[in-house]
Amino acid sequence: MAKKNAFYAQSGGVTAVINASACGVIETARAHKDVIGKVYAGRNGIIGALTEDLIDTSKESEKAIAALRYTPSGAFGSCRYKLKGLEENKAQYERLMEVFKAHNIGYFFYNGGGDSADTCLKVSQLAEKMGYPIQAIHVPKTVDNDLPITDCCPGFGSVAKYIAVSTREASFDVASMAKTSTKVFVLEVMGRHAGWIAAAGALAADKDHEIPIVILFPEVTFDQDKFLAKVKEKVEQFGYCTVVVSEGTKWPDGRFLAESGTRDAFGHAQLGGAAPVVANLVKEKLGYKYHWGVADYLQRAARHIASKTDVKQAYALGKAAVELALKGYNSVMPTIVRASETPYKWKVGMAELKDVANKEKFMPMNFISKDGFGITQKCRNYLQPLIQGEDYPPYNEGLPDYVTLKNAPVAKKLKGEFKI
Amino acid sequence: MAKKNAFYAQSGGVTAVINASACGVIETARAHKDVIGKVYAGRNGIIGALTEDLIDTSKESEKAIAALRYTPSGAFGSCRYKLKGLEENKAQYERLMEVFKAHNIGYFFYNGGGDSADTCLKVSQLAEKMGYPIQAIHVPKTVDNDLPITDCCPGFGSVAKYIAVSTREASFDVASMAKTSTKVFVLEVMGRHAGWIAAAGALAADKDHEIPIVILFPEVTFDQDKFLAKVKEKVEQFGYCTVVVSEGTKWPDGRFLAESGTRDAFGHAQLGGAAPVVANLVKEKLGYKYHWGVADYLQRAARHIASKTDVKQAYALGKAAVELALKGYNSVMPTIVRASETPYKWKVGMAELKDVANKEKFMPMNFISKDGFGITQKCRNYLQPLIQGEDYPPYNEGLPDYVTLKNAPVAKKLKGEFKI
Repeated sequence: MAKKNAFYAQSGGVTAVINASACGVIETARAHKDVIGKVYAGRNGIIGALTEDLIDTSKESEKAIAALRYTPSGAFGSCRYKLKGLEENKAQYERLMEVFKAHNIGYFFYNGGGDSADTCLKVSQLAEKMGYPIQAIHVPKTVDNDLPITDCCPGFGSVAKYIAVSTREASFDVASMAKTSTKVFVLEVMGRHAGWIAAAGALAADKDHEIPIVILFPEVTFDQDKFLAKVKEKVEQFGYCTVVVSEGTKWPDGRFLAESGTRDAFGHAQLGGAAPVVANLVKEKLGYKYHWGVADYLQRAARHIASKTDVKQAYALGKAAVELALKGYNSVMPTIVRASETPYKWKVGMAELKDVANKEKFMPMNFISKDGFGITQKCRNYLQPLIQGEDYPPYNEGLPDYVTLKNAPVAKKLKGEFKI
Repeated sequence: MAKKNAFYAQSGGVTAVINASACGVIETARAHKDVIGKVYAGRNGIIGALTEDLIDTSKESEKAIAALRYTPSGAFGSCRYKLKGLEENKAQYERLMEVFKAHNIGYFFYNGGGDSADTCLKVSQLAEKMGYPIQAIHVPKTVDNDLPITDCCPGFGSVAKYIAVSTREASFDVASMAKTSTKVFVLEVMGRHAGWIAAAGALAADKDHEIPIVILFPEVTFDQDKFLAKVKEKVEQFGYCTVVVSEGTKWPDGRFLAESGTRDAFGHAQLGGAAPVVANLVKEKLGYKYHWGVADYLQRAARHIASKTDVKQAYALGKAAVELALKGYNSVMPTIVRASETPYKWKVGMAELKDVANKEKFMPMNFISKDGFGITQKCRNYLQPLIQGEDYPPYNEGLPDYVTLKNAPVAKKLKGEFKI
């Protein structure tokens, strides 16, 4: 039992590049077969560990694992399932340890956001207490870019690139139509708590592409009059205007814009969407013809237009996680360090999980322009390098040839089911 | 006055490749300077001709014109403005002739859909009557793919590719999340009258990518019970399901799904969107967690993922329009002819405008599967070649470097304004 196996799981909302991190973990572990045994993945994230539903990644070909680098989504399945506190639900953690012991797992790589960093920390603490050593390493991932310490989170750069590209393209479209038809296009983007993704919409405009863009951030309380005045000003100056609204934007009373009382014919059921609410407001108060779009999953799954920087960083952090484990680290997370801004240079650093878990990183207020509807140069300098470079997947028959793994199960060793 | 100038205008909803047709027209005209003088473009489409607001494309560099090939939207502005019948509003047509005469225009290239084919025909008829010869050539363009005779319409292949790629990516995403979270993703696509674009969503699945997709076509009356049963069946079999709904899908009483009575808090204003209506239905009747997206302008502006076949055909038809004019043709439209399906081969043909104007091409019923929720092999064979090949634009700072033309005005020669 000298050589321990590794466990890898994906957690929370998936991204265009979380599989690139998986690729980094698995390829690096395979390169160190003298120290690390097999890499087992949790089917549907941590639930796979709790229910002893493990995937044997050693059954996948080198080619299939390499293809993870350009395949979006979570190849082993993810889950939205937060383990409770150690005291609240010790049975869950004990079950994890039981499964890890049964399968001789000595390395725990957890690929997720703030919640999973917390779970990762707890696993390592409990393992120590229970005298069964497990090195728990967190691999950061989140389109929301809200983890502390790391300069950015893998997944964010690609969604930022998608939103910037789409905003530029849709703006070109509205500009062509504005004379007799649509004058305002409203695009709704993700980011319930922080405006990082919405901010990326502002990159669509630059010195060579003068595009009137109004951003609605979750960090800035929605001021209807100010907003309408801004849209009117842009339409009068440019003939059209593009609005990028974060799903997290709120009315002064704290409700989300999307919750502004939309009802179906029977008077029930919130149909959702901040974009139609904003578009309708523009039509009703200013009389402009509008179009609106909601990118939703399209934005975070858009591997076809992923940022090369993001893909590289996602892979590098997966690789670094294994290397940190090999060096004996525990309860840590590899991070992206911005070594230089102009020219952009980055390297891999490391953070202690106790400094990461359950902490959110918001947009600094000096990243938002004074009027509250745009970004500052400081913000642009931060964002621009993260969307650099294209990393196109291979195509077959006109479509990206993403991989679907075999995901062969590992034979169960424990008796009895664990209900989650 | 031997050498006549040409007039070019863009009409209706723009596409990812209408500028590639413009590029074909202008580059080919420039290559025949011995016969064709300058190419004037209408600012904001035909309105530019009516108001004598012409753009002198000779002021644009070769590089700028070449960049049109990879720039989405309408570079000269488009418009939604249909000229009335000759008898109803003869003054408009006479005004057109007056402007054309004043600027020594002998060639009229009109780039649009069915309505503009009709306008083009009328201009050539009137020109003949008035004894001022104008060769009117229509260049087909429409994401709706609804023009007759031509095998496909430039603009459609790229939107089809975007929808197929996005449906595949979003489906991978839902599949990862389905165990504990979202089970159904609903994507709304364009196509008010015909289901061509919705059909493209079905291409996301193929023999190597088994993806459960349910399509809602405008051609098939929405049957709520049958639809819910189909979604349930897919979710039970695959764990998740993707629904692609055309904005043109209708209830049995003939109303659009999007018009199903969504009201704001004050009881007025239709906020629109078939996707939220369908998603809500799935939630209410089946209890599945959902996400929904509305691609809207993103789909038709997505030059970053344009179909190479589509770009080539768009350019070829712009080029062919000028070549037909040089050969003395009038009242015609260059078309795409499918010379062979396997392997796919196409060539440029020609149609008489009288056979094109005001005729719509719908999806053949044998393109829709028996259950009404998918496509047949025949349909797949038709669609697949149209999304073939990638034709990436150049990037700068992480974003596609689309061109914005100078659009310098031509000095007016007529006195008095023309009100539109």
